[in-house]
Amino acid sequence: MKKFLFLLLTTSFAFAQIDRVEPPFWYADMNLSEVQIMFYGKNIAQNEVAVSNGVVIKTIQKTENPNYLFVTIDTKNQPAQELVFSFSKNKKVAFTKPYSLKSRRENSRFRKGFDSSDMVYLLMPDRFANGNPNNDSTKETIEKANRANKDGRHGGDIEGIINNLDYIKSLGATAIWPTPLCEDNDERGSYHTYGQSDVYKIDSRFGTNEDYVRLSAELHQRGMKNIMDYVTNHWGYKHWMMNDLPTYDWIHQFPGFKQTNYRMTSQFDPNASKTDAAMCMDGWFVKSMPDLNQSNPLVLNYLIQNAIWWIEYADLDGFRVDTYSYCDKKGIATWTKAITDEYPHFNIVGEVWMHDQAQMAYWQKDSKIGAIQSYNSNLPSVMDFTLHDAINGGVFNESKANWDKGIIKVYENFTNDFLYPNTNNLLVFAENHDTSRFNQIYQGDFKKYQMAMSLVATVRGIPQLYYGSEIGMKGDKNVGDGDIRHDFPGGWKGDTNNAFSAVGRTMEQQQYYDFTAQLFNWRKGKSVIHTGKTTHFVPENNVYTYFRYNDSESVMVLLNNSDEKQEVNVARFRENTQNYSTGKDVITGQIINLKNNINIEAKSALILELK
Amino acid sequence: MKKFLFLLLTTSFAFAQIDRVEPPFWYADMNLSEVQIMFYGKNIAQNEVAVSNGVVIKTIQKTENPNYLFVTIDTKNQPAQELVFSFSKNKKVAFTKPYSLKSRRENSRFRKGFDSSDMVYLLMPDRFANGNPNNDSTKETIEKANRANKDGRHGGDIEGIINNLDYIKSLGATAIWPTPLCEDNDERGSYHTYGQSDVYKIDSRFGTNEDYVRLSAELHQRGMKNIMDYVTNHWGYKHWMMNDLPTYDWIHQFPGFKQTNYRMTSQFDPNASKTDAAMCMDGWFVKSMPDLNQSNPLVLNYLIQNAIWWIEYADLDGFRVDTYSYCDKKGIATWTKAITDEYPHFNIVGEVWMHDQAQMAYWQKDSKIGAIQSYNSNLPSVMDFTLHDAINGGVFNESKANWDKGIIKVYENFTNDFLYPNTNNLLVFAENHDTSRFNQIYQGDFKKYQMAMSLVATVRGIPQLYYGSEIGMKGDKNVGDGDIRHDFPGGWKGDTNNAFSAVGRTMEQQQYYDFTAQLFNWRKGKSVIHTGKTTHFVPENNVYTYFRYNDSESVMVLLNNSDEKQEVNVARFRENTQNYSTGKDVITGQIINLKNNINIEAKSALILELK
Repeated sequence: MKKFLFLLLTTSFAFAQIDRVEPPFWYADMNLSEVQIMFYGKNIAQNEVAVSNGVVIKTIQKTENPNYLFVTIDTKNQPAQELVFSFSKNKKVAFTKPYSLKSRRENSRFRKGFDSSDMVYLLMPDRFANGNPNNDSTKETIEKANRANKDGRHGGDIEGIINNLDYIKSLGATAIWPTPLCEDNDERGSYHTYGQSDVYKIDSRFGTNEDYVRLSAELHQRGMKNIMDYVTNHWGYKHWMMNDLPTYDWIHQFPGFKQTNYRMTSQFDPNASKTDAAMCMDGWFVKSMPDLNQSNPLVLNYLIQNAIWWIEYADLDGFRVDTYSYCDKKGIATWTKAITDEYPHFNIVGEVWMHDQAQMAYWQKDSKIGAIQSYNSNLPSVMDFTLHDAINGGVFNESKANWDKGIIKVYENFTNDFLYPNTNNLLVFAENHDTSRFNQIYQGDFKKYQMAMSLVATVRGIPQLYYGSEIGMKGDKNVGDGDIRHDFPGGWKGDTNNAFSAVGRTMEQQQYYDFTAQLFNWRKGKSVIHTGKTTHFVPENNVYTYFRYNDSESVMVLLNNSDEKQEVNVARFRENTQNYSTGKDVITGQIINLKNNINIEAKSALILELK
Repeated sequence: MKKFLFLLLTTSFAFAQIDRVEPPFWYADMNLSEVQIMFYGKNIAQNEVAVSNGVVIKTIQKTENPNYLFVTIDTKNQPAQELVFSFSKNKKVAFTKPYSLKSRRENSRFRKGFDSSDMVYLLMPDRFANGNPNNDSTKETIEKANRANKDGRHGGDIEGIINNLDYIKSLGATAIWPTPLCEDNDERGSYHTYGQSDVYKIDSRFGTNEDYVRLSAELHQRGMKNIMDYVTNHWGYKHWMMNDLPTYDWIHQFPGFKQTNYRMTSQFDPNASKTDAAMCMDGWFVKSMPDLNQSNPLVLNYLIQNAIWWIEYADLDGFRVDTYSYCDKKGIATWTKAITDEYPHFNIVGEVWMHDQAQMAYWQKDSKIGAIQSYNSNLPSVMDFTLHDAINGGVFNESKANWDKGIIKVYENFTNDFLYPNTNNLLVFAENHDTSRFNQIYQGDFKKYQMAMSLVATVRGIPQLYYGSEIGMKGDKNVGDGDIRHDFPGGWKGDTNNAFSAVGRTMEQQQYYDFTAQLFNWRKGKSVIHTGKTTHFVPENNVYTYFRYNDSESVMVLLNNSDEKQEVNVARFRENTQNYSTGKDVITGQIINLKNNINIEAKSALILELK
């Protein structure tokens, strides 16, 4: 009895010793078969480690902090099974820890990421819909719900997203990109969740890890995809590690905070000073976000495994990576390659917010621009920020065109397409959660919305729609982030306006919704748009005309950005129209005879399927 | 007697048959040993051709026009000598034509072109100085001198340039780029000479071919270089060939005139329509300038030989090529390569007037951007038009800086330097003969002139100064080309203001002159500026700081674009200052201690030689 009590005490003591194990479990039959497990517990590094079932420990790495042990095991050819780690002192097992190698989903490795056949719906979970009012505030998180505060938490959650997937699907969207869902335990502004406190755990105010897995399942049932917003560059200052860092250089220290200069050009600028280049990468994005040091192999490994763990665990279809070009340049390329080595058909779009095609193209996988400096980011997709610059910069207000004003700005965006290794894998968008809303910039001018969406829906790349724009939502970045991230009307019990349902929408909302849904549902089936070639013509009279085509189909798009009805000379486009006699307007169904000139209304778009 | 008379008649008749021979002579021992001689004369193609001295005729090419014969001879291993071409009909010699193979100047092949050790003085010969009032109007040219007409001919000439070479040299210039000097026989606006009527002949209002050769000799005596402004894209509508084209497709015909769309992006844009791309290259720059078809081998050969002929004949040190990127893309690359094959150290700067570094870099020799499309223009040098955009766009008026306003625009220009294969071979300039004058844009603000010139004189590349700016000349492109091409004061007899001499200058002119001369004369001896590396720092408080350095020297440049005196923290630049303790102001000679912060006056530049 005495002995038993002793064992019991030991065991109880043992489990108390380990506060964290990350990744919490792993999978059998992974390409990344060597997994570096981080054990965290008071003075854990004083122990010897062994693992059961004949699994090989490749390395045991200790750091300057005795509370961490990084144990790398090789799971190659190991079946799914339950392992046990034992921790010994003086050759006596002090305590043990079970560890699962789980089975992967069938064909997990070859999961197909989002691509240009998709339309991505970007939403902010806290602001989209409150499916579970019981988790608006939780005991374990600091910031409590306060819907009256524009920058506070409003209660939106995963349940709210799931409840409205049919709505999202009805828009023609085939993928969602929710802003981050992992726990952000900041005292203020935690709703955006870019300052994460635990990257293995969904924020309890959004739901549970299991809810997130269910979100993927619900999406997949609908033939839709789940894109996780992943943050490699930084964590939040409330991240649990910040009180007890594994190594001093886990984050960049000056010591502590120093702000990045945000001059991302310094990452390739041959003239950049070393200090500027370092401060861009190593400086913190903001004071509340400690900057992770991806040049530290332990950190890099941690981020790689965390990312892969989420893909496998939550059955993901893609990543959107925040502040991609602020990371350690070499580290982030390694991170990206590790993921695409594990999942060769997975897609990752990085936020590279620059204003020059060569600079953005630099960051796309197999870039010839990057190759000038022998750099390959391995990043499959970047965002077409220069197209956004034209759209969000007010191009649709430029009714009088000249050499460099008017719709020519949109035309010009595509003249540098040859700089990108893969234009089909560019995310194209009018706005996102960090910019003024389109409908704000254009003061709710529906015609301009139609033009912008027609453009985004028909050019090369992957269109992205920002939640709420499809019902005409406005929001001014200059007023504050809160203003561009309003609650979706109808997402909260008691909302007087419910734009999720036809009966609840205002007439204006319905007009926006109808157009958006019709346009993107049409796009859904059009491989000629997804992967077709493009031929465009120099705008004349502020009318931009381009064609998307493949061997079997051709679509003609006209955008009249002038304030006047224009008569467009079809003969000019002979190289693209010669095999066709009519064009069918995909919105109105009207048939247009290509033998005649085309009349196009002021400030309008025409999308014609050629026959 | 009868026989002699017959021969005499024949001979006389014979010479009358040939109106033109081009090139009029050639050189022995050329890399381009196969020269295609164009014989022009009534029905000349009806004759058989032979050449004396055992020289081999490689090909005889006839065209649809019987008045032309293109005869290619191989001069390989032939000494300088006088050849005779004989033209026969029915096996009887009808007439003969002597043809010289001349000796080349010693080391002609390895002549060294202008480079980053040079400062290029750009002038318009008609507007610079009238050295010979007797040739202001000539019998053989249509447009007569009329100095009262801003767009007319003012009488400037080669003699005027030669007379003022010492003045140009005193500025620190080491090369001149006169706008074209070959004959332009247009009825109006011929002064700019970009619409040439005879590309083997200096315009008689500028002087003679011999005068042009003398200009080179006078330059070389002073250690200076002669850059010819060459026009490959077009000739003038009064070109002698236009009345009797060798082939219909010698020029691009629609038939006759159709204007280019000027959309140079269509030359690499993968989405460009074929018709747009063709209209950019094949359309005429303006109606009075028929567009040459460089895809026609006869035209291309003609242009190659003409260019080489001028280099050899006039002992040139470089070309500036007009409207480079409007030419047939393949043809112009072949033209450029032929010249640099003949003269491997020659330099050629092309006018590629675009607003994006990747687009400009596309056109520089061995460009990695061009290589994306397997294109190599072979063009050694392009113009840094984006730097010009910043300067001429009013950056020095942006005293309040923010993220993308102020001197950051200048900094940003250099962040893309990695896109260029050779930044030392970029022409850098504040303005040229096609833009508003710097001193107009900045309303004669001398401090801003000092800043701009300090920049142009110290960044990588080849600085170019536009005549008259060194004495504060103004001119508004919006008023018209004539306004930016005023006569240099003192270039004409009776000018009340003579800025060529110190006594003749106004106080303001003297101030501009002194600064310019001091700056560029200092630059002359500074290899650290010519070929040194650059490190620049992100501007702070609208102050831009950069260093030019090599193993033995270092120069620190500060530009304070703010309206206030600034105290600059030297410690920030430690990586570039650590081995130095003082900086000597190259203008004032003042010694600055680098241990302290540097105080820099509002709107000013400091160039410090570090010791």
